[in-house]
Amino acid sequence: MQCEIITIGDEILIGQIVDTNSSWLGRTLNAEGIDIHQIRSIRDLPEDIHHAIRGLDKKTELVMFTGGLGPTRDDKTKESLANYFGVELIHYPEVEAHIEALFARFNRDVNRLNRSQAWLPANCTPLFNEMGTAPGMLFYDNGRWIVSLPGVPYEMKHLVADKLLPLLREKVTIDKVLVHRTLLTQGVPESILAEKLEPFEDSLPDCLSLAYLPSPGRVRLRITGKGPKNTGVEQSLDAHFGILKKALEAITYGEGDDEMEEIIGKLLRKHNATVGVAESCTGGYISHLLTSVPGSSEYFKGSLLTYSNELKESILEVQRDDLIQYGAVSKQVVEQMARRAAEILGVNYALSTSGIAGPGGGSAEKPVGLVWIGLRTPHGVKSAQFQFNGDRERIIRKAALMALDMLRRELGD
Amino acid sequence: MQCEIITIGDEILIGQIVDTNSSWLGRTLNAEGIDIHQIRSIRDLPEDIHHAIRGLDKKTELVMFTGGLGPTRDDKTKESLANYFGVELIHYPEVEAHIEALFARFNRDVNRLNRSQAWLPANCTPLFNEMGTAPGMLFYDNGRWIVSLPGVPYEMKHLVADKLLPLLREKVTIDKVLVHRTLLTQGVPESILAEKLEPFEDSLPDCLSLAYLPSPGRVRLRITGKGPKNTGVEQSLDAHFGILKKALEAITYGEGDDEMEEIIGKLLRKHNATVGVAESCTGGYISHLLTSVPGSSEYFKGSLLTYSNELKESILEVQRDDLIQYGAVSKQVVEQMARRAAEILGVNYALSTSGIAGPGGGSAEKPVGLVWIGLRTPHGVKSAQFQFNGDRERIIRKAALMALDMLRRELGD
Repeated sequence: MQCEIITIGDEILIGQIVDTNSSWLGRTLNAEGIDIHQIRSIRDLPEDIHHAIRGLDKKTELVMFTGGLGPTRDDKTKESLANYFGVELIHYPEVEAHIEALFARFNRDVNRLNRSQAWLPANCTPLFNEMGTAPGMLFYDNGRWIVSLPGVPYEMKHLVADKLLPLLREKVTIDKVLVHRTLLTQGVPESILAEKLEPFEDSLPDCLSLAYLPSPGRVRLRITGKGPKNTGVEQSLDAHFGILKKALEAITYGEGDDEMEEIIGKLLRKHNATVGVAESCTGGYISHLLTSVPGSSEYFKGSLLTYSNELKESILEVQRDDLIQYGAVSKQVVEQMARRAAEILGVNYALSTSGIAGPGGGSAEKPVGLVWIGLRTPHGVKSAQFQFNGDRERIIRKAALMALDMLRRELGD
Repeated sequence: MQCEIITIGDEILIGQIVDTNSSWLGRTLNAEGIDIHQIRSIRDLPEDIHHAIRGLDKKTELVMFTGGLGPTRDDKTKESLANYFGVELIHYPEVEAHIEALFARFNRDVNRLNRSQAWLPANCTPLFNEMGTAPGMLFYDNGRWIVSLPGVPYEMKHLVADKLLPLLREKVTIDKVLVHRTLLTQGVPESILAEKLEPFEDSLPDCLSLAYLPSPGRVRLRITGKGPKNTGVEQSLDAHFGILKKALEAITYGEGDDEMEEIIGKLLRKHNATVGVAESCTGGYISHLLTSVPGSSEYFKGSLLTYSNELKESILEVQRDDLIQYGAVSKQVVEQMARRAAEILGVNYALSTSGIAGPGGGSAEKPVGLVWIGLRTPHGVKSAQFQFNGDRERIIRKAALMALDMLRRELGD
């Protein structure tokens, strides 16, 4: 089943927001065997919405619109669709009752604009929105499903998962397979990997393809399998993924969509270990990554964020002499930070960072991007020095991921 | 000047990455008076790339391709463009020399794949990439500029800012004005704001339009001005923005693209004040936001992240009796956390959080999303309780922003 995603909203085109809905939809629909062949972002203009429908590829059987369903005047999707289909808006009393109930919960009055959301094109099947006021809509038009959903990400996700997919699964049979497997590697640049993997790539059958996704310090390798159902696509994918995995064992840190922090969470649970952090230049980002994982309170105990030198001394008992002699960005300092953090926090493993995230603060001797990372383990303290490039955000991110990776290597498999 | 952005890469369509390039390009080109009328994401397929060019709107004078310029086989943009234009690839010795120099810096050998990046379509003007191996390319085709850039965000940004825009400014005169001004409001829902602003919206001249951008707890209001140069569009925008600002003074927290953490940074500098944090449920995210601002070390001193109750006791001296009687998520606990954090960190202002970010850990009495926020100021300690909805990520984000907003209100203008 071929699908196009169309996100509506001037705020996307002028770059005021980043469209994350399309990415989620791509992943979610792929998992149903639905192939996204194009994503478009268009303006909140009736003519652009009509133009987008008219310009659809003939083979597109599913169109996912998101956005433009708010109660304000700049939102024009609902009226544009009614207009396109040449139908009136009709009133759905159950939607209005739901809006009233939602507002009552927050002790707010329902105004005229809110009530207008209970009026929908006569030819749609409403997708009842339990998380908000704008219902989704499902249309069937000349052999093609057209879906319109609100742009608010958690409302959109709710409507897809709980309302749309169950309905689609009833109405449509998908006879194709679309599967992905991804290997997460690091430390070897894309072009070197690609040269090494040339014979492997040549050996892939037509139903499989290999893609490279480089990001700071790492490369994700994705094999995609595509073909008719029951023709062995999945088996072939598994077999070739196994070969790839074996060939790259030494540089692999995980598989699939796992983030580094999730992998670490699993390892810490497995080893029944606990972790804490003494952060300086990473400014809380390592802790944020670790605690973004549900259930992380089982192994993550806390962090000491000593941004100033005074706090490195007063909280982490870093020796003033070392701060003076070697500077805050030094082996001596990060090792003391990690050691003392482990004691204060009562954890088996403690990471520490100290570096120059920039844009200011660099020198010839210690340039922007220089970061020392320390790791205290039950067996001792180690540290390493890195030179990252990029802007402040990138340096903070790379340093945090590198620190987590030092911990991952220490924890083993 | 009408522009379309086309991002190339299967990884976007299957949702493996979020396309952030388009958003940055939208903002950057808008600032030059260039109007983005559509964004498309397409597959790494020559036929899709050709199809995209053929399907361009007649009025589109600038096309920005990103992605598909890597050295690996899954990247097909360069060959597809050469093919489309019917030209050969030719060798650029200076690009190869640059690639060699880049690799030498990292003590790596240049392989065949790397060298292939020095071959470019004969009809392009190369945009020399100082940050990476893939040059950008500028084509002129039947009255239309076609640009192709690597997808790696910092390389793309470098090429646009340092190479493309200077060239374009020489070649093209833009006779239209496209300007935006944005007011940041919070605490009043979109539909109520919209009702209140109806007369204002009616009063806007044709060259101005108002848009609503709701996000958790806040609404950004954007007025866009569009029209021929020297017809007073900017003046009209300024005048109406002034009216809007005055009308919404009580609920405004800032203007433009400023993030909350930047606004706070400015306020802290202005008041010559310092800040620290005692985080629990927000897990380092408040600290991360504060330290993401360049120069934040001037006012941000550090944080104590006490995820476990033991550390709330041992580091922040929260009374065990209170932890038992009121629980960690309570007024008593966040107030003690903020008070003690300010002392330990030696700061004027200290924020604290304790809550249930979920998905686990909730109860009937203290459901997921319940968060207490404390704030210690030079005048005393205050706290407030919030009930946020959404998933773990959303709750952490909302709690962090709400905490920062408490601080902002305290700091005044």
